[in-house]
Amino acid sequence: MTYKAPLKDMLFDIRHLAGIDEIAKIPGFEEAGFDTAQAVLEECAKFNEGVVAPLNVDGDRNPSSWKAGVVTTTPGFKEAFKQYAEGGWQGLQHPTDFGGQGLPKTIGAACGEILNSANLSFALCPLLTDGAIEALLTAGSDDLKATYLENLVSGKWTGTMNLTEPQAGSDLAMVRTRAEPQPDGTYKIFGTKIFITYGEHDMAENIVHLVLARVVGAPEGVKGISLFVVPKFMVNGDGSLGARNDVHCVSIEHKLGIKASPTAVLQFGDHGGGVGYLVGQENRGLEYMFIMMNAARFAVGVQGIAVAERAYQKAVGYAKDRVQSRPVDGSISASAPIIHHPDVKRMLMTMRAYTEGCRAMATVAASAYDAAHHHPDADVRKQNQSFYEFMVPLVKGYSTEMSLEVTSLGVQVHGGMGFIEETGAAQHYRDAKILTIYEGTTAIQANDLVGRKTARDGGQVAKAIAAQIEKTEGELSKRDSAAAKAVAKKLTAARQAFLDVVDFIAGNSKTSPNAAFAGSVPYLMLAGNVVAGWQLARSLMAAEDLAASGEDKAFMEAKVATARFYAEHILAKAPGTRDAIVDGAGSVTALAIEAF
Amino acid sequence: MTYKAPLKDMLFDIRHLAGIDEIAKIPGFEEAGFDTAQAVLEECAKFNEGVVAPLNVDGDRNPSSWKAGVVTTTPGFKEAFKQYAEGGWQGLQHPTDFGGQGLPKTIGAACGEILNSANLSFALCPLLTDGAIEALLTAGSDDLKATYLENLVSGKWTGTMNLTEPQAGSDLAMVRTRAEPQPDGTYKIFGTKIFITYGEHDMAENIVHLVLARVVGAPEGVKGISLFVVPKFMVNGDGSLGARNDVHCVSIEHKLGIKASPTAVLQFGDHGGGVGYLVGQENRGLEYMFIMMNAARFAVGVQGIAVAERAYQKAVGYAKDRVQSRPVDGSISASAPIIHHPDVKRMLMTMRAYTEGCRAMATVAASAYDAAHHHPDADVRKQNQSFYEFMVPLVKGYSTEMSLEVTSLGVQVHGGMGFIEETGAAQHYRDAKILTIYEGTTAIQANDLVGRKTARDGGQVAKAIAAQIEKTEGELSKRDSAAAKAVAKKLTAARQAFLDVVDFIAGNSKTSPNAAFAGSVPYLMLAGNVVAGWQLARSLMAAEDLAASGEDKAFMEAKVATARFYAEHILAKAPGTRDAIVDGAGSVTALAIEAF
Repeated sequence: MTYKAPLKDMLFDIRHLAGIDEIAKIPGFEEAGFDTAQAVLEECAKFNEGVVAPLNVDGDRNPSSWKAGVVTTTPGFKEAFKQYAEGGWQGLQHPTDFGGQGLPKTIGAACGEILNSANLSFALCPLLTDGAIEALLTAGSDDLKATYLENLVSGKWTGTMNLTEPQAGSDLAMVRTRAEPQPDGTYKIFGTKIFITYGEHDMAENIVHLVLARVVGAPEGVKGISLFVVPKFMVNGDGSLGARNDVHCVSIEHKLGIKASPTAVLQFGDHGGGVGYLVGQENRGLEYMFIMMNAARFAVGVQGIAVAERAYQKAVGYAKDRVQSRPVDGSISASAPIIHHPDVKRMLMTMRAYTEGCRAMATVAASAYDAAHHHPDADVRKQNQSFYEFMVPLVKGYSTEMSLEVTSLGVQVHGGMGFIEETGAAQHYRDAKILTIYEGTTAIQANDLVGRKTARDGGQVAKAIAAQIEKTEGELSKRDSAAAKAVAKKLTAARQAFLDVVDFIAGNSKTSPNAAFAGSVPYLMLAGNVVAGWQLARSLMAAEDLAASGEDKAFMEAKVATARFYAEHILAKAPGTRDAIVDGAGSVTALAIEAF
Repeated sequence: MTYKAPLKDMLFDIRHLAGIDEIAKIPGFEEAGFDTAQAVLEECAKFNEGVVAPLNVDGDRNPSSWKAGVVTTTPGFKEAFKQYAEGGWQGLQHPTDFGGQGLPKTIGAACGEILNSANLSFALCPLLTDGAIEALLTAGSDDLKATYLENLVSGKWTGTMNLTEPQAGSDLAMVRTRAEPQPDGTYKIFGTKIFITYGEHDMAENIVHLVLARVVGAPEGVKGISLFVVPKFMVNGDGSLGARNDVHCVSIEHKLGIKASPTAVLQFGDHGGGVGYLVGQENRGLEYMFIMMNAARFAVGVQGIAVAERAYQKAVGYAKDRVQSRPVDGSISASAPIIHHPDVKRMLMTMRAYTEGCRAMATVAASAYDAAHHHPDADVRKQNQSFYEFMVPLVKGYSTEMSLEVTSLGVQVHGGMGFIEETGAAQHYRDAKILTIYEGTTAIQANDLVGRKTARDGGQVAKAIAAQIEKTEGELSKRDSAAAKAVAKKLTAARQAFLDVVDFIAGNSKTSPNAAFAGSVPYLMLAGNVVAGWQLARSLMAAEDLAASGEDKAFMEAKVATARFYAEHILAKAPGTRDAIVDGAGSVTALAIEAF
């Protein structure tokens, strides 16, 4: 077995941090209590461990290939995706109206992690389809919904997001793809899109491209961008597939990682114009695209957790197996498995603590999403919505940045063998590097955190979160255990550092934007660090209580030990990050551009 | 031009931090003053920029290949190495007695950086040859010296280090390769060595393997290891090449990076026994191997600086060229080159500060090596030797770990393009990952720092360095500039953190070895951070003085800005690292092994 889903930890988070039984009280989620979560996750683990995970290495060695416009995926992918669709996994979180299972994101996020741990490249196809479904659900006409949603939800068709153009990466104002209105209400689409994940492949009967383009005569900048559905094959009135549309894959990229996932250059309109259908209203494309983006950003954060988990499992396996040198404490008088060496433990604990911390953060964020979208009380919805929105850049930015460190440590634990491709640790290191880049780089997440999520409300949401953290500190301090007291101390210092930075960011974003934005990514890292540490502190308390009541003592003690490690080694960085942001704002931009 | 040697910065360090004019007062180095350094570095830059650097991408795309025991290097490598040898570069630091140029390491280290920036894979061949030369110079018999040294120094032959075996990586006690004494005084060598860099190739007429093996009947463990010369081709009495020796390359590895550098599995003795010549005395092999290792460890640290420099240059080029989005401060009203965005500047400044900091540290360490080996005064030699020995794990460990962060940022600056292999940024990210592993992982460097370099003398050398740093703080505080004061403040806090950890490590290494070694790598990172920050603080003062005297003002101001950035953003991490080591020692090893 190359991967085993960490079901215990996931279910612990779902139950004790995210409060699944509270979510099951929300109308529509009555069936989605703990037992359902457990049953779904076990089924999900079984499928992914058995079918998807074994294809991960194959995908790296034998990536998707392009020939004359046709993309052939890694052998086994097509069949596995068929099973994925047949198992109903694509529809997990989508409405029952269109054939989905309507489960909460709290459960869906955990399933997403399992799928991504099993195979990051494979998982990208459903990830993008989820985004397309969200966009159509929110902004599509009834006609578009009727035509496309059921087949997307069932996994018969897949979806893509077409944003990037050679001159328009993070800067969508520069999108040039052109949409010409036709007398029949459709549009003809002309242009080139790059970096289109699963923009062409052989795993589904049709591909539904969601495309940003500019209607002729539209305003300049982001206010002139519209969103279109451009199917690979036209769909007839009876739902059957018609002619090939004028969108073609002219090449796929040769990448550092996630090699099995085809990254397409798509050419629209070289043969008269691709037929496009407007989603929602003209010039509101960016707004709709953000629906997709926000779903995708959360999902990419989960990818970071997923690849970190898999790298951790691989490193633990090697460290228990590889025998080198005697332990420094003399506990074993012969050469021992390297997991006995303190620095190997330090590396594994770092990997584990980051992974569990980010998983806890993402699970709690997912439950806020569920409450924000489905709770009957409008105030509860609003409060959860603002919490969730604050969490999205943290889940995306922090979990992916930590995955770089974790996958690097994963190689390091393997020593020289880690550098040999056949070992497999290096694949995770290569795969992870895209996660801090796509769906908005870490800097783009940090801009969102600084601008929309902190400065706009003067830091109110941030301070409300800090107040909740302070409450946790109080609960920790009342406990007798040394672990709880140690964590409380670090959490207090970290929360104070976070508040200092919130004040600094909120105070400077208008008057000294360079100073505020110079600290944007460190602020994101600090905020993610504090929130993940906070959730682990909560898990420490739950675990102590459960251990006391006799439930799975070994597991609960490990939760406590991991939370304490996180606090003492990772949360401990928070004051230094604050100092860098506050004291060091000026030195970031001091050097003249010509001096570089 | 894909790479331009940073001659100004190198010569600044050589002159103002390492004091080349003092080194030129040492007998034997009379010709090695600043003018020589400048002339040699300019020539070195010209050769490497023009000949070696352009082969870097080729080597990645068209790596060394193996067929039936023969390894063919990337087209162009053989010819470039011929030019390298003819230029006298292999002999730069080696004694004139054997045809070398006898230049100080202070100059040699800079040339090493240039070569490695140009092409990490190519540079490994001379790097290993340097180690073999050092070992033979120190421990070889006159006969071995006469037979091998001249051709190694001239670059006609190359050298290797054969330590690792499948079961013996970091743990050399487990070496099993067998040496059987023969009546003629030679030995027959039998065994398998893995991870042998340039263990087989087509760039030289002969390959001189330095091989660790166990003489039949020798004691177990590291006290029974001897060192042998095993040439690929036997050498006749007249110096001509004779028969093929019984050492054969059975395969080369498929690696994450440095793909052009062949990593060989070598089989000794499958056809009756490889002929080996004992170096020095039996059972003292580890001691001699450490001579090679120490030279190589310093050189690998320089590789870290080199790859960081190249990644930095590439990122700066892209950031000045790529246009996306408007600057947040409104300084430009249209989309601007991304270097105008604060977070891009933060990434570039981080890359630059790490690189310059580690370069300053390595240059000063190199000058200590020169004084330790050549100064006429025994006390001066001794003092410099203990400083240099403290620096080796820092130069190796810190510079290579920072190169992982710098090359990762290098990809990040390129955004999506960074993930595309053709861009070239990803190669540096892949190449760098070996540097924290080979010639002793970061943990092995940290063990050396904790055990031999700190605990053994109760932290005396460490404290003497801290006292020198304190002196620098005093000098900084006397200055009027805000930059000097800001740096002094951070340096004081970092030095205090360093001292706290030295006390902790020295106090616990015997009584609580798990606690001391749990903090070993963080201690190394802290020590490297402080020393690099200290050297940048010294450069700040030199640069302020030179700017005041009117010398190259723009360059000097950039030195000041970089030193301040380093202090405020990187040195600022030091107290947090101290807290993790001291407060968090217990949580590293708290989790039971079965719980992983």
